Amino acid sequence: MSKPAVVLLSGGLDSTTVLAIARDRGFEPCALSFDYGQKHEVELRSASAVAAAMGVKRHEVLHVGLSEFGGSSLTDDAMEVPVGRTHDDIGEGIPSTYVPARNTVFLACALGYAEVLGAEHIFIGVNALDYSGYPDCRPEFIEAFERLANLATAAAVEGRQHISVHAPLMTMTKADIVREGTRLGVDYSMTVSCYRADERGSCGECDSCTLRLRGFAEAGLVDPTPYWPR
Amino acid sequence: MSKPAVVLLSGGLDSTTVLAIARDRGFEPCALSFDYGQKHEVELRSASAVAAAMGVKRHEVLHVGLSEFGGSSLTDDAMEVPVGRTHDDIGEGIPSTYVPARNTVFLACALGYAEVLGAEHIFIGVNALDYSGYPDCRPEFIEAFERLANLATAAAVEGRQHISVHAPLMTMTKADIVREGTRLGVDYSMTVSCYRADERGSCGECDSCTLRLRGFAEAGLVDPTPYWPR
Repeated sequence: MSKPAVVLLSGGLDSTTVLAIARDRGFEPCALSFDYGQKHEVELRSASAVAAAMGVKRHEVLHVGLSEFGGSSLTDDAMEVPVGRTHDDIGEGIPSTYVPARNTVFLACALGYAEVLGAEHIFIGVNALDYSGYPDCRPEFIEAFERLANLATAAAVEGRQHISVHAPLMTMTKADIVREGTRLGVDYSMTVSCYRADERGSCGECDSCTLRLRGFAEAGLVDPTPYWPR
Repeated sequence: MSKPAVVLLSGGLDSTTVLAIARDRGFEPCALSFDYGQKHEVELRSASAVAAAMGVKRHEVLHVGLSEFGGSSLTDDAMEVPVGRTHDDIGEGIPSTYVPARNTVFLACALGYAEVLGAEHIFIGVNALDYSGYPDCRPEFIEAFERLANLATAAAVEGRQHISVHAPLMTMTKADIVREGTRLGVDYSMTVSCYRADERGSCGECDSCTLRLRGFAEAGLVDPTPYWPR
């Protein structure tokens, strides 16, 4: 019998690859996406397309009003998403695209969903190498969440559930991720990583596009997702 | 200068008392409430009235779609809130009113709000004595969340913030809580604890009403909140 797992799915390159990895490892993935007031809400359409293409039986899109707090250029119209930064720039400090406590909120919701589903596994596409400097993408954060999770739920406390949080991309470069996903048959044309994505596709200039394009280049592959016409 | 603090405020007896305690300890409380699809959403009106009466400058009501998961009689129309249980019954096991991972989600959102506000303190009205058997009300859960919080945010990682999670009711009985709130001038007629609360007031029969009524009785006080006419 297959093991159910909750996979956090934004519709981007990383989370889509994680979905393919979870399936490849024999899990039955249930996908969870968030409408949190992100400017690039078109990513939710990608998430739905990816979930359908990969045969996911349950896909929830949860509304969480994080944009009401402000404090991030991903959700706050008064703040601009940075563009044109080099790979070296991206490694310096925590950028304005950081959304306060976002992964804590997403994992907390995934935990609730896992408990309702009777799932013991949560997958998240965080990555500590080719990443944007976000604190809630580090291994110590994931370990602390796993510890919390096993104190938090009725099922865990009653001994019916032991939650494992899987972050299979943690030590991979973007090129590694693209290669692994390609090997597993991921169709990256469906995925959208861009922080400014809209009907035309991805901008090609934000940090997320810069990291993605470099990953494809290093893997010797062409990124099939549509980019804004120049 | 006063210290800002995020206070989780449901509009019930416990969280309202916590708000009074936070203010009494010299914090400047910012209140955070949740519209999570609870059947007793009238509690949000109490939360707003309490926040206004207690001079709270900022009060956010965040929408989080937890009811979409189901799995709790507080949010799922197919499940009945238990009524008529005695105090001894309530101590046995985890009841259907448990909402999977609710306090994890609420604290995660409070953490995001705290980071945006530059607040280092989060107050939550959990209680391990006269409580409903919820796992996410225990001291070890609160400690694990505090540990997570200090690994999660940009502000914590950059050394600009150290999050403390305060649970001042943890070892108090309901009678202690009512006495302390009364001493601090809380107007409990504004608060609603009932899981089935509606326009008429509180039901007087659910676990939350049973615990509340016993608390007032033990404190030798009369509960001024309106109950359903008999």
